[in-house]
Amino acid sequence: MTTQDLVFQIRKKKSFLCIGLDTDLEKIPPHLLQEEDPIFEFNKAIIDATHHLCVAYKPNIAFYEAYGIKGWKSLERTIEYLNGKYPEQFTIADAKRGDIGNTSARYAKAFFQDLNFDSITVAPYMGKDSVEPFLSFKDKHTILLALTSNLGAFDFQTKKIEGRELYKEVLNTSKTYQGAQNLMYVVGATKAEYLAEIRRIIPENFLLVPGVGAQGGSLEAVCKYGITSDIGLLVNSSRGIIYASPAIDFAEVAQDRASDLQGQMQKEMESRDLI
Amino acid sequence: MTTQDLVFQIRKKKSFLCIGLDTDLEKIPPHLLQEEDPIFEFNKAIIDATHHLCVAYKPNIAFYEAYGIKGWKSLERTIEYLNGKYPEQFTIADAKRGDIGNTSARYAKAFFQDLNFDSITVAPYMGKDSVEPFLSFKDKHTILLALTSNLGAFDFQTKKIEGRELYKEVLNTSKTYQGAQNLMYVVGATKAEYLAEIRRIIPENFLLVPGVGAQGGSLEAVCKYGITSDIGLLVNSSRGIIYASPAIDFAEVAQDRASDLQGQMQKEMESRDLI
Repeated sequence: MTTQDLVFQIRKKKSFLCIGLDTDLEKIPPHLLQEEDPIFEFNKAIIDATHHLCVAYKPNIAFYEAYGIKGWKSLERTIEYLNGKYPEQFTIADAKRGDIGNTSARYAKAFFQDLNFDSITVAPYMGKDSVEPFLSFKDKHTILLALTSNLGAFDFQTKKIEGRELYKEVLNTSKTYQGAQNLMYVVGATKAEYLAEIRRIIPENFLLVPGVGAQGGSLEAVCKYGITSDIGLLVNSSRGIIYASPAIDFAEVAQDRASDLQGQMQKEMESRDLI
Repeated sequence: MTTQDLVFQIRKKKSFLCIGLDTDLEKIPPHLLQEEDPIFEFNKAIIDATHHLCVAYKPNIAFYEAYGIKGWKSLERTIEYLNGKYPEQFTIADAKRGDIGNTSARYAKAFFQDLNFDSITVAPYMGKDSVEPFLSFKDKHTILLALTSNLGAFDFQTKKIEGRELYKEVLNTSKTYQGAQNLMYVVGATKAEYLAEIRRIIPENFLLVPGVGAQGGSLEAVCKYGITSDIGLLVNSSRGIIYASPAIDFAEVAQDRASDLQGQMQKEMESRDLI
């Protein structure tokens, strides 16, 4: 999917919501455990109930890998379902991969070609040749970790490297990578006050913003500092939507939560004449 | 496996060789492609031919993920074979994972509990709460990326963060994490001259050293600056051993290459009266 297609979907749906599919057998409604593939059935129900309210889905790969081959099958079925029934959705493999060149190329092949995700999250620690293999795929997007939403972000990311914070060094350096036009960045909502400075370095790139809701970030602050004329934001909510109800009505309640967020997003965009 | 067990194996075998199982269908001998599970058959043959010469095996998870469910099955069979037939081997899931706390916990469960690897490689960018879930497993080891063997290492790792290089900051900060006694570190052989300074910060932790051979690092230099009284090194070779011959004799030739390296390692240890 091109960035233009994504912007088109955002304007059409008046939403820049991304729903995180962190599907956990211990948290899904117990009645689903009788199904042959409870993870897929849960995802399918969530997707069917929310697809008109969001523009992206983000399975966190750890949750699938934790179930071995079964989990991998559920992931394959989920992405096939999305690509088949809702091809307008932007899909994100939240995998946080990154390795030496020939190995990153393997991960890129797995997630972009075989599973046919539109994008993948990548950790920047190993630098240029660990990121560029992902950037070489046309109309695929590499979402580099910049400033994450967790406490550990203060261990290294916000420390000053040769005069400026490491996450800014990541933004600046990655701009010079071959294929940099395919870069997006992870910036946690819990650190929204950093967004103004981030926008000075990357005025236009899309940001994937986790941490709204469950982790305490505010949508208002994210928009205030991060929104662009082409929106430039994908705000993710996982647990706050998919586990809003532990009962048989889980998909309906998830829809309500997604609808709340979509409504807030519409307001933010309308108040800035962006839609 | 405890660190003491690993040191015992190293002294017994007079080897601190780790063999990287970066198994690629395009590089294994063509006659194996007729097998039902060529990746496993290749690994099995390599392991059977080399197990007495090395103390560790390191499947790079990307190579398995690139084949989806089939690859995951080959990985499961490989680790089961290792744990069943050669339980004295130290096993490393070269996965370079790292995510927010509850997600890292999922990866830890997948690799430590379900697959029963002794260790996993982890990327440090997300800090404390992304690493500690791995450290909480008894007798399991977390091998943190410090200074990798690729060119991209110079993008961020060697840049100065508040006065000292980022990789040193990673070493120093991670020493304070809960469960730090379970930490090992990745330090590339291509940067052996950095090892003296690294040993000043972490005098005893085991180092996993990739980049000897194919990537140009020297075993002599690694030992000169990195070896400890308990050896403290696992030197990895992947392509240089497993793809030494593309023909039917691949396992024998792999054995010869492993034997060469074991011999060099024995000399390095003997010359220092370590065995």
